[in-house]
Amino acid sequence: MTLSRSSLSSLKVAFQGVLGANSEIAALSLASSWPDRTLEPMGFEDFAGVLEAVETGVCDLAVLPVENSLAGSVLSAIDLLFSSDLYAVGEVRVRVRHQLLAPLNTPLESVKRVYSHPQALAQCAGFLKKHGMIPVPAYDTAGAAQDLARSKEVGAACIATARAGELYALETLQSDIEDEEFNITRFFVLSGEHLPTHLERPYKTSVVFAVRNQAGNLIRCLNGFAQLNMTKIESRPRRDRPWSYLIYVDFEGHTEDPRVQAALSSLMSHASVFKVIGCYPAAQDEVG
Amino acid sequence: MTLSRSSLSSLKVAFQGVLGANSEIAALSLASSWPDRTLEPMGFEDFAGVLEAVETGVCDLAVLPVENSLAGSVLSAIDLLFSSDLYAVGEVRVRVRHQLLAPLNTPLESVKRVYSHPQALAQCAGFLKKHGMIPVPAYDTAGAAQDLARSKEVGAACIATARAGELYALETLQSDIEDEEFNITRFFVLSGEHLPTHLERPYKTSVVFAVRNQAGNLIRCLNGFAQLNMTKIESRPRRDRPWSYLIYVDFEGHTEDPRVQAALSSLMSHASVFKVIGCYPAAQDEVG
Repeated sequence: MTLSRSSLSSLKVAFQGVLGANSEIAALSLASSWPDRTLEPMGFEDFAGVLEAVETGVCDLAVLPVENSLAGSVLSAIDLLFSSDLYAVGEVRVRVRHQLLAPLNTPLESVKRVYSHPQALAQCAGFLKKHGMIPVPAYDTAGAAQDLARSKEVGAACIATARAGELYALETLQSDIEDEEFNITRFFVLSGEHLPTHLERPYKTSVVFAVRNQAGNLIRCLNGFAQLNMTKIESRPRRDRPWSYLIYVDFEGHTEDPRVQAALSSLMSHASVFKVIGCYPAAQDEVG
Repeated sequence: MTLSRSSLSSLKVAFQGVLGANSEIAALSLASSWPDRTLEPMGFEDFAGVLEAVETGVCDLAVLPVENSLAGSVLSAIDLLFSSDLYAVGEVRVRVRHQLLAPLNTPLESVKRVYSHPQALAQCAGFLKKHGMIPVPAYDTAGAAQDLARSKEVGAACIATARAGELYALETLQSDIEDEEFNITRFFVLSGEHLPTHLERPYKTSVVFAVRNQAGNLIRCLNGFAQLNMTKIESRPRRDRPWSYLIYVDFEGHTEDPRVQAALSSLMSHASVFKVIGCYPAAQDEVG
């Protein structure tokens, strides 16, 4: 793949959070698609800042989490995509693994308090309970690791990625302490420009459209997709229009495929608002 | 409505959390449907405990959050419903409002630290930033209020419901400090038995079914709904079967309506797994 500024050696990728977050792992995974560029992940405070970094040219690409297999869709991210001019040009699936990390020479038995984001704490509730550890909420997993590395609080550990442990020189007291294995976060890779298509790869397309809450309306919009394979569908009420819904659909196929074009033109004639979020090579494997 | 143990004067309703949580507000709203019973909300630590309370007869009903307009579906709750024997017999929509609460005689200007669940803190980020207050993550909103009432920490406030303020004798320093108004949590009311139908009211039905990831499969399942009004559709990958999906659909209509019966029997012949979560009077208004 190429980007217009590909003559620059460094590829700057915006992500939300601090170094060591799962979002940074998603950003780093792009290295294999741009082997000739040095990857430079840049952390931003919130999703809006991540998108702005690409819109203003500070970064070349962004990674934005859009769904998690345990927690569901990341609606605040998806909402931003609806009004953004960026395109989804890729997807990355990160397998979320939780490590119990602590300052060097902390025996597992001495750990009383464990810092992390409440969702990570909840996903490791069984482990924490079994070891009599008290969960302490923090803003994010990698941020908890960064804070603990600074404070070196005695009797404390945190839950974060293995990469956060390396970055902040914390020791792994116990690996993969999550109660559930089925924990995958899916990210969109966003760009201000379309990338060349690699037709030898399977593609997916993501669209969002609005329908009014009337019998059969949604089915009429979807009927054009009968020849395609939908991999995700989700409705949500529109905040600005009562009794009207936004529908997000992901399906297999490229926008240059005539079957996809037929489905989209059928959709356009029935939906009141319509937008292609992107068309991108389907993620083949999980990273992380 | 009646329940088999309606001769008892008290109607015990299980909810997740502590008194003052939005879930308790959902539980209390059931009073209008059972005017002859004294409502007794009972808090449990987690969703599994809430369901178990009804399954074992400790409680008559349960309220379980299934979606929020800003945060999306509560997948951990929905997963439990799929394997539970309880029925959805009602729905409640609670308008989430965030109050800045503090121990008596705390001037607004003296507040430096604000405790609450990270989601509530994020939903009030604009207010906190404007007033230079530092957000401090806690497990839940009502729990933060309970803790602050005990500690009476100087310079601290919390974000919770107005009811939490009353229950824990905290003062409202500022009302409705949320950045976004469109914050509604939808709860299912769950029972171990079906309730009599009130056909003068509009009903909704919720179903979940599984489809394999093959072109047109989902459309074939949904085609039976063309005469009905779907109010929600959401797909998620099945954790036990790769390339197979669970689809949740809410639609308007009662399971005794012939159009609904036709749609469900068409669905049953195309879906590999199928379950009616419940059939219940549609919520007319928001509470809270």
